[in-house]
Amino acid sequence: MSNPGRPRSREQAHNQAQGESRGQARGQARKEHILAVALKIFAENGYRGASIAEIAEGCGLSQPGLLHHFPTKADLLTAVLEYRDRLDAEKFHVDDPAPGTAALRRYVEIVEHNAHLPGLVKLFAIVTSEAAVNPAHPAREWAVGRYEKLIGGLAANLRLGVEDGSIRADVDTTAVARLVFSMMDGLQSQWLLNPDQVDMPGLFRAFVDEVTREITTS
Amino acid sequence: MSNPGRPRSREQAHNQAQGESRGQARGQARKEHILAVALKIFAENGYRGASIAEIAEGCGLSQPGLLHHFPTKADLLTAVLEYRDRLDAEKFHVDDPAPGTAALRRYVEIVEHNAHLPGLVKLFAIVTSEAAVNPAHPAREWAVGRYEKLIGGLAANLRLGVEDGSIRADVDTTAVARLVFSMMDGLQSQWLLNPDQVDMPGLFRAFVDEVTREITTS
Repeated sequence: MSNPGRPRSREQAHNQAQGESRGQARGQARKEHILAVALKIFAENGYRGASIAEIAEGCGLSQPGLLHHFPTKADLLTAVLEYRDRLDAEKFHVDDPAPGTAALRRYVEIVEHNAHLPGLVKLFAIVTSEAAVNPAHPAREWAVGRYEKLIGGLAANLRLGVEDGSIRADVDTTAVARLVFSMMDGLQSQWLLNPDQVDMPGLFRAFVDEVTREITTS
Repeated sequence: MSNPGRPRSREQAHNQAQGESRGQARGQARKEHILAVALKIFAENGYRGASIAEIAEGCGLSQPGLLHHFPTKADLLTAVLEYRDRLDAEKFHVDDPAPGTAALRRYVEIVEHNAHLPGLVKLFAIVTSEAAVNPAHPAREWAVGRYEKLIGGLAANLRLGVEDGSIRADVDTTAVARLVFSMMDGLQSQWLLNPDQVDMPGLFRAFVDEVTREITTS
């Protein structure tokens, strides 16, 4: 009996590799489609309010079909959050060093960008709040880790500014970083509730300008 | 046939009035007990995640017994939010005028007070986020109205400061008020996620001190 998985010639091997690669690409595209649908449903309903049934229906899949890709609702939420974090990190190079107030400017750009992506802002707002009020929430670790990473990263960049003399040496860089991300989060809530009257990027920029004046040496 | 509700002497009238008053007090106490239990359950699960069955059980009531007082889960959430807003307004006299930066000081006190009330902070955080991401949420109107009132009230007090010359005339008082409540909300999330490392009142006080320096004329 021949092994159907084993190619019999170089040409067949080539064709099979192409087939696998097409299969992987299709699998990846299907996963990304699921993540996009799940993002939208989590964003409007939170983790608790979203149902696997609704997400499966939105993807045109059966529930077992969806659960084949993501075994639990918690796995799906985690995958959505990690996917979005990865896209943002790639887009805004947030892991590259940006000494001193250049790091603050980067977050002004991110908020300007987010003002066109209410679905994404909703996702982070609702999941962060759910995780904040419930220590057993599946995104608790993600939320705690995300702030640690954001605050640690900005504080480190601000300390580079202290070292190069552009930022005052007496500035508590961690405290400044906490205030910056608090402001970003708080403005998001007001903007989502009242998008026509709340100029989220303008208010954030004004705040960052003021922080910049306060912490720089010049 | 005598009317059992009609007292036959002054003494009886007195006793009945006392009985009614006792009955009203008992009814009021029962309602407040329900609101306290509901607050705790809404605070940890949000509106979507909380169930009438769980709240009834926490109150030692049957579901029909609970629904006699509050016909729907939405009614109960609204009552909890209004009850808390009323208690806060009474405690902190937030409706009294506090010209200029005195109004900012008042919110520093409120944040210091809230740092002892994580349940209440959780309630406002989760319900505000749920309402922000979902226009059909039963607390949407409450959330929009709450910001309007808070921001309008603080901006009005800051304008009194402009009039008495203590605050610079070029200050955008509404923008400052928006930033103040954004900071308050954003710090709450970080504090709930990491209460041991985030000094919510200290960070808020530092922010308000900085805003005060920025907007005052002296």
